[in-house]
Formats: sequence, C-alpha cells, structure tokens
Amino acid sequence: MMAGVTPALPLEQTIELLAVFCAALSGGLSGVRKNFDLFGVLVLSWATGLGGGMLRDVLIGVTPPVGIADWRLMVAALGAGVLISFAHPRLGRMRRVVIVLDAGALALFVLVGTTKALDLGVGMLAAVVVGLLTGIGGGVLRDVLTGEVPLILQDRQLYAIPALLGAVATAGVWYADALGAAAQVVIVALVFGFRLLSLRLGWTAPGPRSGTMGG
Amino acid sequence: MMAGVTPALPLEQTIELLAVFCAALSGGLSGVRKNFDLFGVLVLSWATGLGGGMLRDVLIGVTPPVGIADWRLMVAALGAGVLISFAHPRLGRMRRVVIVLDAGALALFVLVGTTKALDLGVGMLAAVVVGLLTGIGGGVLRDVLTGEVPLILQDRQLYAIPALLGAVATAGVWYADALGAAAQVVIVALVFGFRLLSLRLGWTAPGPRSGTMGG
Amino acid sequence: MMAGVTPALPLEQTIELLAVFCAALSGGLSGVRKNFDLFGVLVLSWATGLGGGMLRDVLIGVTPPVGIADWRLMVAALGAGVLISFAHPRLGRMRRVVIVLDAGALALFVLVGTTKALDLGVGMLAAVVVGLLTGIGGGVLRDVLTGEVPLILQDRQLYAIPALLGAVATAGVWYADALGAAAQVVIVALVFGFRLLSLRLGWTAPGPRSGTMGG
Repeated sequence: MMAGVTPALPLEQTIELLAVFCAALSGGLSGVRKNFDLFGVLVLSWATGLGGGMLRDVLIGVTPPVGIADWRLMVAALGAGVLISFAHPRLGRMRRVVIVLDAGALALFVLVGTTKALDLGVGMLAAVVVGLLTGIGGGVLRDVLTGEVPLILQDRQLYAIPALLGAVATAGVWYADALGAAAQVVIVALVFGFRLLSLRLGWTAPGPRSGTMGG
Repeated sequence: MMAGVTPALPLEQTIELLAVFCAALSGGLSGVRKNFDLFGVLVLSWATGLGGGMLRDVLIGVTPPVGIADWRLMVAALGAGVLISFAHPRLGRMRRVVIVLDAGALALFVLVGTTKALDLGVGMLAAVVVGLLTGIGGGVLRDVLTGEVPLILQDRQLYAIPALLGAVATAGVWYADALGAAAQVVIVALVFGFRLLSLRLGWTAPGPRSGTMGG
Repeated sequence: MMAGVTPALPLEQTIELLAVFCAALSGGLSGVRKNFDLFGVLVLSWATGLGGGMLRDVLIGVTPPVGIADWRLMVAALGAGVLISFAHPRLGRMRRVVIVLDAGALALFVLVGTTKALDLGVGMLAAVVVGLLTGIGGGVLRDVLTGEVPLILQDRQLYAIPALLGAVATAGVWYADALGAAAQVVIVALVFGFRLLSLRLGWTAPGPRSGTMGG
C-alpha cells in the first residue's frame, strides 16, 4: 500500500514525504468530520501536514520554511486532502490505517526535525525541543483550527514519551557521529513501535492527581 | 467613502493602509459581538488587521514585521477598533459595507503579500503561498482568538479561489516584469470582483462528498 | 516564599526565571482544571511559561528562541508544571498567590521583552509592541490551547493598560540611557502595583458600548 511514492529519492526524503502525507490525511479527515467544504479540507490537510515543519523552520531561522517552498511536500499534503475528500467513506473505515500512519509520521517528523536543528548548530536542548514540536505541531494546529482542544493535551495515551525518547536518541547518536541510515531506521522503528504498543496495550499517562510518573 | 486616507502616499501604501483598516473593522466587529471590553476590541482589531502581514514577514524572514514597526499601519488598525467601539450600532447595520471592504482587504493583501515575497527572492511557489496566507491570516487569527472555527474553513463561499488566482496572477505578471500600477489595479479588481460576484450569485465550494471540484 | 531560586544569578535573570515560573504555574493550573494528563499539564506549563518569550524572539529575529535553548528557563517552566501536578489541591486554594505571581510575571515580561527588543535596535514602536506581546503571549497561548477565549480579551479587568504603561516607561528610560537596576525595579513595581490595585479596587475597562475611555 502506498508503495513507491517517489522511488528515485533518498530514503530520508521519501520518508518525509510519507510523513507529510500521513499527517495531512489525519488533517483532511478532521475537516471532513467537521463538514468543511473541499477547500477547507485542503487547507486543513496542508496545515496539518506542513505545520510542524513550518514551526520548526521558523524557530531555527530557516526562511522561507520548506513547507511553503518545496513542491513535493506541497503535493504530498494537498494530494492527501484530495484523496480524503473523494475517498473518505472508505478511509473512514480504515481508521486503524490512519492511526498507524500517524504514528509513523510522528516518528519520522521527530527524527527529521531533531536532525535538521542539530545540523544548523542550535544546541542539543533546542534540537530536542524542536524535534518534539516538529512531531506534534501539525496535530496541534489541526485541532486549534477545528476548535478542538489538542489531542496531545487531553488524551491519556502515550504520545509525548516516545517522541521525547526519539528526539533524545537522535541527538545522542548525532553527537556520536553515527546517524547513518541504519540508526535512523532503528530510531523511527522504536518511536513507531513504542507508540503503537502503548495504544495496543492501553498504556496511559497518569492524570495530575495520580501522583506517579509513567516515564 | 473613506476617501483620501493619506493622499500623499503612493498608491500601493494607500491601499495597504485601507486593507489593514478594513480587516481591522471586521476584527473589531467580532470583538463587539463577543461583548469584549474596549481593550479586547482593540487587541482583536490589531491582530486581525496586522496578523496576515506579520505571518508573512515571519515566514519570509523580515523581522521585526511591519505590523509592529510601522506607525501608520498601527494607527489604521487601532483607529478601526476605536471606530467600531463607538460607532458599531450603525456599522452593525452596515454589514454589507464591511463585506465589501473585507473583499477589498483580501484582494489587496494577496497582491501586497505575493509581491513582497517575490521581491525578497523566495521563489514562485513560496510567494503564492505567502500571498494566500497574507490574505487569510488575519481572519484566521480573529476567529481562533474568539473561539470560532475559522470562517474560511467552514463557510462554503468562494474565498480561497479568488485569492489563489490573484496570487498566481501577481506572480505571473511579476515574472514578466510587468507589475506596474495598471496591472496591480487589474489584479485587485479581479480578485475583489470575483469574491463579491460569488457572494452575490451564491456560488459555493463543493463539500467533500460531492465529488466535483469548483475550481 | 520561593526565595533563592538561583542566588548566584544577576537580578534580571533571577526575575525572568521567576516570571517564567509564575506564568507556567497558571498554565499548569489551567491544564489541571481541564483534567489533562501529566504530560498535557507539562506541555501547557511549558507553552504558557515560555510562549511569550518565544513569540518575542521570533518577531525580533532571534533564533532559536531562548524558550527552547535555555536549560534554566525550561527547568523553571517544567518544574512549575510538576509542582502543580502534585500539589494542586493546595495551590488551588492559593489562587490569590497565583494572581499575585501572574501580575509579577506580566510586569517582568514587559520589562524584559521591551528591553531585549530595544537592545536589538528594532525601534521604539516595535519594542513597545514586542514588550506587550511578551507579557500577554503566554496567557493567550494557554487559553487558545485549552479552548478558551483569551482572558485578556474578555475579562474587564485592567490588564493591557499597566502593561502598555510599563512598556512605554521602559522604552522612555532606555532612550534616556537610565535603565539601571533601580529604574527596572521601579517599573516592575509600578506595573505590578497598578495591576493588583485595579483588581483590588475593581477598576474595569469600559465595554464597547459605554463610550468612555478608561485610559
């Protein structure tokens, strides 16, 4: 499924396109559920798919952000919106697929965001935060624009922990100068697996009253 | 009506001031309808009038944004807020005037935003997106701050299409090195006319289920 | 109370840490009241404590913003979140303390934000606006993320006026080259006192219909 999006591209860019595509799918579905018109769905797909990367680029001083300057990312985001607009009754039943793809988008965005920040020399702490924000930014924007409280703030599923671990792991391996293709695949797989496993097994973050930390 | 705001200024700056003023009027009216206090109305007028231009400037790396650095734009935005605060019972009946002015603001912001981005050399795609965001940014900020789902996402009136056409036309004429005063007036008139005509004739964007594109 | 956070630091940095801490407390409390999980509370504390400073830095072109690059500010924001998560039943009764600290955060953020902008040479108008936005940005972000209309827009207490006066005073004294420790303490005390006095005495901003300006 979804094989060979852009086979001639390097691994990282292929995965980034897939990440944008998956995030944009979740944005488009939100718009469809809110009964937005076609252009509302497209705007929301665009904002969800590219919002995290735009936030990242503005924070690290890369202007214009790739989200508004790269044709391929734009096509991936808007293509997801068009697909959702026409195919959503079927995709609505494929909710599980979207959750899986969304976890993949989180994993990849965290890797790409942290790496890009480190490459620009912003320091480890800032890079980890930027990686986190790249991973969660699009979803927060999606929820704010649809009048919802951001999912990451209110659902008790583990979302921030795998993202944080992924960002820290990326930074550690980057400083060890060992962030090759193999390490990247391992990091993405770990974040992705942790996130899906926590959903599967019903792991939850503690509420503020419970007094025990889950991390 | 509203003639001669700053007669000594060049055409473009005069229209930009008018655009900020119109957008700020719509922001102030939103605040009045939400029963905000005087300062809430002023903050909302400011954010709506200058939000699109600030978003544009942050995205293309112009800091500080003109929205916080130019006295005239600030006076236009806050003046609209004060006017709304004191005159709104009458302006409330003049809703049609506001819609007309809002369409003018959209047309002008798209022209100014696209041109400014191109002048900074950000590339055609980025310039078109920046132009669009300049046109719609203030209204989105207004709606998010008042707890509403952004109008552009949910109403089915044609809003994004004339804006997109205006941005593409601006970029095309700019690349042809023909963006003189006449071309600018034509582009603004086309966007403005398209938007008002779509309202007048009840043209709507298709919903996600309808399966036909309106563009 | 809360004495000696970082005794070896200069006055200004100590107060900035305290400002971040107080703002983050208000963010954390909002999260607890919305029944967010532990990580939601931490994210909200972080965003409220550091959002104003991040907005300031993005607007004046300082990237990465200190809010994601400075360990001490991060610890202050997240420490407040952890404290709220475990101690909030008691802090809930200490609402008055939070209001007092919040007024202090406003006063300090306005001083720090205006000064930082002036030091970067952005001009007086932009510096005053940046100072204001630094003071109110975190609270606006907190309210948008929790699905509330920003408090500053809708409550009729005087919030913007003391902040504006503080920013103007800071800029005036800065231009007179007299912004030493004494002047800074006086400005913070004035904003802080004005804000608390207006709460104490029930001063309110006029509604849009009342037709009289309170400033």
